[in-house]
Amino acid sequence: MHLTRRHALAGAAAFAAAPLLPALPAKAAAPAAGKQNASFYRYKVGDAEVTVVSDGASTFPLADSFVTNAKKEDVNAALEKVFRPRDSVTIYFGPLVINTGGKLIVVDTGNGPAAFANSKGAAGQFASNLAAAGVDAKAVDTVVISHFHGDHVNGLLTADNQPAFPNAEVMVPAVEWKFWMDDGEMSRASGDRMTGLFKNNRRVFEAGLNKKVTPYEWGKEVVPGMLAVETIGHTPGHTSYVLSSGSDKVFIQSDVTNNPDLFVRNPGWQAFFDQDGPQAETTRRKVYDMLAVEKMRVQGFHYPFPGLANIEKDGAGYRWIPTPWNPSI
Amino acid sequence: MHLTRRHALAGAAAFAAAPLLPALPAKAAAPAAGKQNASFYRYKVGDAEVTVVSDGASTFPLADSFVTNAKKEDVNAALEKVFRPRDSVTIYFGPLVINTGGKLIVVDTGNGPAAFANSKGAAGQFASNLAAAGVDAKAVDTVVISHFHGDHVNGLLTADNQPAFPNAEVMVPAVEWKFWMDDGEMSRASGDRMTGLFKNNRRVFEAGLNKKVTPYEWGKEVVPGMLAVETIGHTPGHTSYVLSSGSDKVFIQSDVTNNPDLFVRNPGWQAFFDQDGPQAETTRRKVYDMLAVEKMRVQGFHYPFPGLANIEKDGAGYRWIPTPWNPSI
Repeated sequence: MHLTRRHALAGAAAFAAAPLLPALPAKAAAPAAGKQNASFYRYKVGDAEVTVVSDGASTFPLADSFVTNAKKEDVNAALEKVFRPRDSVTIYFGPLVINTGGKLIVVDTGNGPAAFANSKGAAGQFASNLAAAGVDAKAVDTVVISHFHGDHVNGLLTADNQPAFPNAEVMVPAVEWKFWMDDGEMSRASGDRMTGLFKNNRRVFEAGLNKKVTPYEWGKEVVPGMLAVETIGHTPGHTSYVLSSGSDKVFIQSDVTNNPDLFVRNPGWQAFFDQDGPQAETTRRKVYDMLAVEKMRVQGFHYPFPGLANIEKDGAGYRWIPTPWNPSI
Repeated sequence: MHLTRRHALAGAAAFAAAPLLPALPAKAAAPAAGKQNASFYRYKVGDAEVTVVSDGASTFPLADSFVTNAKKEDVNAALEKVFRPRDSVTIYFGPLVINTGGKLIVVDTGNGPAAFANSKGAAGQFASNLAAAGVDAKAVDTVVISHFHGDHVNGLLTADNQPAFPNAEVMVPAVEWKFWMDDGEMSRASGDRMTGLFKNNRRVFEAGLNKKVTPYEWGKEVVPGMLAVETIGHTPGHTSYVLSSGSDKVFIQSDVTNNPDLFVRNPGWQAFFDQDGPQAETTRRKVYDMLAVEKMRVQGFHYPFPGLANIEKDGAGYRWIPTPWNPSI
């Protein structure tokens, strides 16, 4: 061990220069790439156990109309503010498995097997992450669907169009079911997107599940300990939940916001996939005011994995404070 | 499907009432608890691959002197601001595995096997999470140590005091090595904590490793692509790193801050385990100003898993914005 003043000075100089350091050259031998961890995460709500089981993520170019009532430049500024690349949006998908009262409940089902194939595994990961989490799809008692968009319902079927949860009762919001199964509504659908959604829902629920679903109503427990809450706007029957056990609870928001870096920070922004943008905004502000005041945890389907957070007011918007990862349970 | 106005109203009423809902009764049958996911996470820095391999976390009562220059009540207020419980501090531990230039490098080694046993698995998880990540300790080429505190060096040895990375060169900061191995410094150590640290370092490096280490200097690459940067104060030889590949880089801060909810938000706070509190604060402010200006990612040993973030200025302090979890790599 031989230390000199020169060494110490060299260190100090390097430190001062660090911000301006040129990048070191990339090394020749590329190391073997490891596999990403399976994206599941467990936490408790009282006696209930929630397992967030990621369905992966989709990244796509930022369209001019992605936020219908904001300029693309403002959306890019919001992305830069959270250190994300410009002109690109990533949407995360987080179905849940809830183990409560001796029952195994799945909440929303992800993009399904076709999306897994089409995205080369980026999305549609729910089935594989579910297996990694040690959950047998055959053991699921109940599947609760929040609303009828493809990233929530397509995982109800396997690649060969059989029920993915063969022993589960599938529960759907009564208002949502009525809207999408109504032939008059379907005939009045305008545009490729809405027409496609109607067709997809008929594919999943009629061809796939033979209409074997149980509609549920707002203001009641959809399963023991889990209250269904009306949060319309994103779709006509869009539903959130309050999961409670003892004095503990979490608000399972479904799609009250999409990516929180955009829509929690800017609750006035309306995404193009909000069927009724102004109603979705009204719901969003009401929910987020409640979450901030009550200091209630929120579980967001489109939050980055694992998607559990608290909400604080921040000027005209809100910030989401992720709950720290607990390495044990 | 039979929907009435009454159902819609029931939903609306339930929604309005949600914040005030009494907790639903806990269910009788407690479901079988699942295991937490193994806490490892991979990301790329150019061609290099970083695997964060958690060593778990320790939670303990908030001591009056935990922050030496702040009142306990102010620390509690900071905890409440981020929705954490009062009077309790959780410290996370995040060693790294870096795969770069065909070499496998471990950066810091966690609390070791005795801590795993003593904490009933809450801390000392590095070895088991390393195995879950598919990394063979025998395949590690180099272990880089940032400083000589037990949560960084104790994982150098197995439960029977053998080298945990038997084929690795162990690299230590030259200044740190000189300080802790100096008999004069050891004889002048005051207090149980400093005395215990000296004893522990003799146990690990003399009895365990027979002094087989390679000292490294600041301002130079400790391994190809990884620059050692002087960030003293926490200990006399405390070291951080800039890992670079191509145009991409990340600042591996080691212990420039402990828990970021306390010390990133309040950079003027000095933790009791900062050996030179004022110097640690000076270093912290310099580093965090740099991180904010350069928009450089930071990997924090004591950040909640996985510990990768960007830094923004926020009044007199900073905020850490966690990098979203990437479900693929």
